[in-house]
Amino acid sequence: MAVDLKKPDVLFPVPGIRLATAAAGIRYQNRTDLLLIEMVHGSRVGAVFTQNRFCAAPVVVAREHLQHRHPLYLLINAGNANAGMGETGIIDARATCRMLADRAGCSESAVLPFSTGVIGERLPIERFPLAIEDLMVKLSHSQWMAAAESIMTTDTVPKGYSECITLDGKKLTVTGIAKGSGMIHPDMATMLAFVATDAEIEPELLQSLTHDLVRKTFNRITVDGDTSTNDSCVLIATGASGVVIDSSDCPGYSLLYAALERAFLYLAQAIIRDGEGAGKFIEIGIRGASTNEEADAVAFTVAHSPLVKTALAAEDPNWGRILAAVGRAGIDDLDIARVKLYLGDALVFSNGSRDPLYEETNGEQALAGNDIFISIDLGRGKAKTRVWTTDLTAEYVRINADYRS
Amino acid sequence: MAVDLKKPDVLFPVPGIRLATAAAGIRYQNRTDLLLIEMVHGSRVGAVFTQNRFCAAPVVVAREHLQHRHPLYLLINAGNANAGMGETGIIDARATCRMLADRAGCSESAVLPFSTGVIGERLPIERFPLAIEDLMVKLSHSQWMAAAESIMTTDTVPKGYSECITLDGKKLTVTGIAKGSGMIHPDMATMLAFVATDAEIEPELLQSLTHDLVRKTFNRITVDGDTSTNDSCVLIATGASGVVIDSSDCPGYSLLYAALERAFLYLAQAIIRDGEGAGKFIEIGIRGASTNEEADAVAFTVAHSPLVKTALAAEDPNWGRILAAVGRAGIDDLDIARVKLYLGDALVFSNGSRDPLYEETNGEQALAGNDIFISIDLGRGKAKTRVWTTDLTAEYVRINADYRS
Repeated sequence: MAVDLKKPDVLFPVPGIRLATAAAGIRYQNRTDLLLIEMVHGSRVGAVFTQNRFCAAPVVVAREHLQHRHPLYLLINAGNANAGMGETGIIDARATCRMLADRAGCSESAVLPFSTGVIGERLPIERFPLAIEDLMVKLSHSQWMAAAESIMTTDTVPKGYSECITLDGKKLTVTGIAKGSGMIHPDMATMLAFVATDAEIEPELLQSLTHDLVRKTFNRITVDGDTSTNDSCVLIATGASGVVIDSSDCPGYSLLYAALERAFLYLAQAIIRDGEGAGKFIEIGIRGASTNEEADAVAFTVAHSPLVKTALAAEDPNWGRILAAVGRAGIDDLDIARVKLYLGDALVFSNGSRDPLYEETNGEQALAGNDIFISIDLGRGKAKTRVWTTDLTAEYVRINADYRS
Repeated sequence: MAVDLKKPDVLFPVPGIRLATAAAGIRYQNRTDLLLIEMVHGSRVGAVFTQNRFCAAPVVVAREHLQHRHPLYLLINAGNANAGMGETGIIDARATCRMLADRAGCSESAVLPFSTGVIGERLPIERFPLAIEDLMVKLSHSQWMAAAESIMTTDTVPKGYSECITLDGKKLTVTGIAKGSGMIHPDMATMLAFVATDAEIEPELLQSLTHDLVRKTFNRITVDGDTSTNDSCVLIATGASGVVIDSSDCPGYSLLYAALERAFLYLAQAIIRDGEGAGKFIEIGIRGASTNEEADAVAFTVAHSPLVKTALAAEDPNWGRILAAVGRAGIDDLDIARVKLYLGDALVFSNGSRDPLYEETNGEQALAGNDIFISIDLGRGKAKTRVWTTDLTAEYVRINADYRS
């Protein structure tokens, strides 16, 4: 079902990172569902979590542990979100960290827990001790692909990105994995993303970099407007390459930034391409807005409109629905006569009505491919934005009606 | 497909109102698609229109004509929205008013035009003269049911409400019709509603009454969050009964208000019951909010959540999705431990986790019927609200993907 998305060919090891996966039987049978990521001592992490007030227990615990010291392990399970479980959920999340810490000989707060899956069921922590034993003996540098597979829930394709760049004659690696295919929304998608590089990055810079990259990538994708209780994005800098990035003025910063942005953007868009029931990958570009907030409001209103999304699923250039969404995006003094709407390259609407040169077949052509580009010029200013979303298909409904049963 | 909604048994004539329908062939074959409502001289109207910035030409013209004088005619077509047509649309809407005015011997501004249907196609005004001739000779008091049928688009059931009350020994009638089944949203649903009474109501009171009733009824329903370019609600007071309501202190005001509210609420809920692809009629009640705005934000966030709506379609008591929607409704200091969630009568969630007495079968029972009640107590204050919505089914997607083709 995924829209032009394939399993990555290769995911390069990142010096300083070892990984292992295990089949703990948390929810699924005959598949891996537990992932351990080990970071070499001295590694730093940047992290961004869900903004949802009903955040899951592992998010609470991971945030707490990040206050204390440098983490050494990320422990990630699929199949159970450990969300909506109150104090029990917190106790369980801490218990899994402690089990790992005891086995690894580190402090409990050096372990960050992550969970994804069904909400409201207790995490079967009794399954962790055996699985942790298995994970600890299997840790290796080469398990990124297996890691990407182990965190899938309704995902149909494992998502990963990898590239190497050279800074000052030294090789740097950027490799990341992500999961998520529904509940995707600006304030973090329902997603987990773990990206690592072997650069050494100054801790405050790393955290601001992570926020900045999430804002430009994961927070600009949406499937259905729903946010998750568990969304988390972690950027690890192991420092194992010896390349030091201690400020944004640093030579090489912009090269590394660009590589990280490609990784984040690829993973964010991969989540959309694997969106639940997605038939189309849709980019909505807004320009000519007065402010960034205005551009975002219009972009997300169009991206969330079920009427727009169903029309795009049917390859129906029903531009009236797009304009109706623009018209309710909250711009009180919008001048319709200045708005321009394009489907692909075709100018559809200008001067308050259908463009005289526009023909229905142009619109149909623009919607025929797997990737669709909608652009809207509001004619009000210089702010612009892009967001990425999917169409809305009967398959989406089927997946989300059947997920628990 | 409609959820427990039937064609009304009878719609009482309203003294002072005559109606006629015609098959003008605007878009459909072999059905009526043009409705004329004639009001006796001295009638007053209250009106509320779409808040969408892309409002359709007839909305612009109707607003303009309402400035000038007392309207005598409402001219309503189905099949073509006359929206997104720029200046041409305005000219066409005015032209249809003039045609009717010429035939009826009144001023053009005594005619209010309304359109519903496809956006972006030119209104075939050449079909109006013959149809108007037909309408003028067929005007009668007894055509309310035919009127309800003539304005249907994707509606599957004609929607009408009628009751008689007695004030000061005089009989008063309230009869109304509405259309709309998708693009339903708080800032007026995609709907047309025309309600008439033979009371005489002071003009400013009538307008504030209309706003107030719309706020409590039509603006509290939502199918998909999409608003229409054409939404309009008109309340006519003909005065033909001789009962005069000149202030809200007037004896009888509260009785008439209650009857009008029943009419508005019935029609609003009928639109939801006939929502596109609806399998369930869902009431979402919020209480314990700090403010009305907060209550509304939570109610509509839950009502618009595709994940909640697909779960309800499947009768799956997936309460985690409801809580996740509550958690992203914008209340920064929401205390999860004070939130209570009920499905029907069953307390599902309290004190930050699943209620100890809750069992999955209780939730399943609450979702098994056609009408579903979700209530959420935020535990923060005294404000409350109710909104009504539908589930999200594969049928919704099919309808909206196929509507134009």
